[in-house]
Amino acid sequence: MKGNCLIAQSGGPTAVINASACGAIQEAQKHQEITGIYGSENGILGILNERIFDLNKEDPKTIEGLRYTPSSAFGTCRHKLTSDEEYDRILSVFRKYDIRYFFYIGGNDSQDTANKIYQKAESAGYEMRVVGIPKTVDNDLWGTDHCPGYGSVIKYTAAMVREVGLDSEASYSSDQVNIIETMGRNAGWIAAGTALARQMPGQAPDIILLPEVPFIKEKFLNKVRDILDSRKKCVIVVSEGVKDTSGAYLGEGSDDVGTDSFGHKQLGGAASALKELVEQEIRAKTRQCRPSIINRNGMHFASEQDSAEAYEQGKFAVTTALNSTSGVMVSIERLSSVPYEYRLRTIPLGDVANTERTFPLEWISDGGMDVKLELFSEYALPLIRGEVQVPIQDGLPVPVRLQRFFI
Amino acid sequence: MKGNCLIAQSGGPTAVINASACGAIQEAQKHQEITGIYGSENGILGILNERIFDLNKEDPKTIEGLRYTPSSAFGTCRHKLTSDEEYDRILSVFRKYDIRYFFYIGGNDSQDTANKIYQKAESAGYEMRVVGIPKTVDNDLWGTDHCPGYGSVIKYTAAMVREVGLDSEASYSSDQVNIIETMGRNAGWIAAGTALARQMPGQAPDIILLPEVPFIKEKFLNKVRDILDSRKKCVIVVSEGVKDTSGAYLGEGSDDVGTDSFGHKQLGGAASALKELVEQEIRAKTRQCRPSIINRNGMHFASEQDSAEAYEQGKFAVTTALNSTSGVMVSIERLSSVPYEYRLRTIPLGDVANTERTFPLEWISDGGMDVKLELFSEYALPLIRGEVQVPIQDGLPVPVRLQRFFI
Repeated sequence: MKGNCLIAQSGGPTAVINASACGAIQEAQKHQEITGIYGSENGILGILNERIFDLNKEDPKTIEGLRYTPSSAFGTCRHKLTSDEEYDRILSVFRKYDIRYFFYIGGNDSQDTANKIYQKAESAGYEMRVVGIPKTVDNDLWGTDHCPGYGSVIKYTAAMVREVGLDSEASYSSDQVNIIETMGRNAGWIAAGTALARQMPGQAPDIILLPEVPFIKEKFLNKVRDILDSRKKCVIVVSEGVKDTSGAYLGEGSDDVGTDSFGHKQLGGAASALKELVEQEIRAKTRQCRPSIINRNGMHFASEQDSAEAYEQGKFAVTTALNSTSGVMVSIERLSSVPYEYRLRTIPLGDVANTERTFPLEWISDGGMDVKLELFSEYALPLIRGEVQVPIQDGLPVPVRLQRFFI
Repeated sequence: MKGNCLIAQSGGPTAVINASACGAIQEAQKHQEITGIYGSENGILGILNERIFDLNKEDPKTIEGLRYTPSSAFGTCRHKLTSDEEYDRILSVFRKYDIRYFFYIGGNDSQDTANKIYQKAESAGYEMRVVGIPKTVDNDLWGTDHCPGYGSVIKYTAAMVREVGLDSEASYSSDQVNIIETMGRNAGWIAAGTALARQMPGQAPDIILLPEVPFIKEKFLNKVRDILDSRKKCVIVVSEGVKDTSGAYLGEGSDDVGTDSFGHKQLGGAASALKELVEQEIRAKTRQCRPSIINRNGMHFASEQDSAEAYEQGKFAVTTALNSTSGVMVSIERLSSVPYEYRLRTIPLGDVANTERTFPLEWISDGGMDVKLELFSEYALPLIRGEVQVPIQDGLPVPVRLQRFFI
């Protein structure tokens, strides 16, 4: 089917979401069925507002540079389509610009949106292909072995935790606690990933708190006391989404700044809450590190494997659509961990949408405060392999920015 | 003079303090005048407590690995010597172990301590050489062009700010503020260093708040409003040590956990205070990133120039002491910025001790909320040049740990 394609990015930025866009663009440029290659500014908002730019007008070097540029070069959004008017509007824009291929790079909510757009187009009899490309640092998408963005965020965050662990070891204080807060709303994949920092038992992180396990104050404090008794220092990793047994977020109240349009609470404050608790109950010197969004953009230490897979999935989405497949998301099927082998396939968008995949309970150990490193490593080590060789100028990584030639 | 040498580390860890130790050890191993090469656990505390280990017993590969290991491999301290008894104790330990060369790697307080030990040894008639090796991410030591540790911390922090800037640019929110808190108690060198992230005007960081400039609420809020009006997003870098016109720290009260033994307040909380202010007064969506001690240990993206200079200064300290010089600190004299040329020299410890070098007021612009990038770049760019090629295993940097063979 001849027509134009539209690529959009949605949800939280990652180090490699632009690598997926690059793969999709470069693949689309190879095929005559795809005439125009467009990008949408800020996800579906750019469709609703007709903020659409021509990617073929960009310098090919800029497109290639997307592989080394973190964040979302197209702009992103968290807009939830609710009314029929919005869906109609989207279809009318597709018709107007003869969009026959739509590639949406995003997480749970975005794949749900893609699915609904696919269904609306079907029922409206508008012929097009909708293919989702997975992306989320949270690694919580159902139906794929892992998500592009995850390998890079845990590589960087585990490096941080290893480095903070060395800082902690150097301290002369007899009781010192360092708390590092990671992203992860409902799934503890990122916090769990920092277990890779530990080269030997007794090294950081000493405690990992996941949203999958309800936080029990006394159990936690006893564990901190035990660690301080034996090692004098304690490094704690806490996922921002950890909740107590009543279901309240640890940081709730303190830094909560409301909810987004999907009804998700904006988190942050778990480390503060733990710091206060440890200081009050144990009287240990406590510091908190809250890198927050720093970690999801760490292109200067991103995973080459992750980046390569993100790129491949962008390409695969295009060939999939050209093969007349629609209403699916690209996914990764792992064939083997040692040696690491995988293949790309697709799953129906309807199976992915809004199903969160949390961290496996059988990989959690130590009363819910640690990870079974051997099991988890087999899964995670292939994902953090290699370092993206980002272009450096004057000592710093050089990203590209799209010119955005609006049509 | 034949005798043993003792090397110790003090103050906050950095990415390259171990490189200086490595340089000193490897140089000392070349000279027959130096018989035993010892390290002291946790700075002068290890001398007071006779926790002294034999560095010649370490695997030479471990010693070489110190160049790729952040934090303080010997352990550090912030102990202030106060009583005559403590000085006498130190001299008696030096006598006991025939320590004739003492190398103290540290910042302001540590150089003051080194100076006092030097004076006490002189007046006690104990023949020895005391040479300080500068180290501080804060870059606030007097008498040297810059301090080992500074180049690496600003390289890493500027990369972070550039990456957060891209995250900010991608946002669809019309009013979004990101606040990044950096270290820097009294000197704004680290916060100022993030100006290097800006490739073009209008890019992050939009505002840089330094401890050298008293914080004026209305001026700040007006600037944030202006930036949001024109660019919709605003990235603010704030030094932890920023004070208001009354001299109170921005974060005071909130996260203050007391004072260390030098009487310095433990800071952290400036970003929280600004977040609250911006949310209340401007009602913009605001996030804070507080990497805290993460940044001073960023070996995975450390400056090769910084690391090489740290190593050289360790070596130079040893040759200086062997040339019968004592009571001095190694310093860097810049000969030229373009091309970058420098030479190592020494200055009397008494001139360094307890004199803080703050960020030059003539390099501050924009009503105290930005840095004159051209002037500052000329100074700073040579310091962030090159990336330390840290050994990687299983996707993560591999540090070394000393065995510490106590004598």
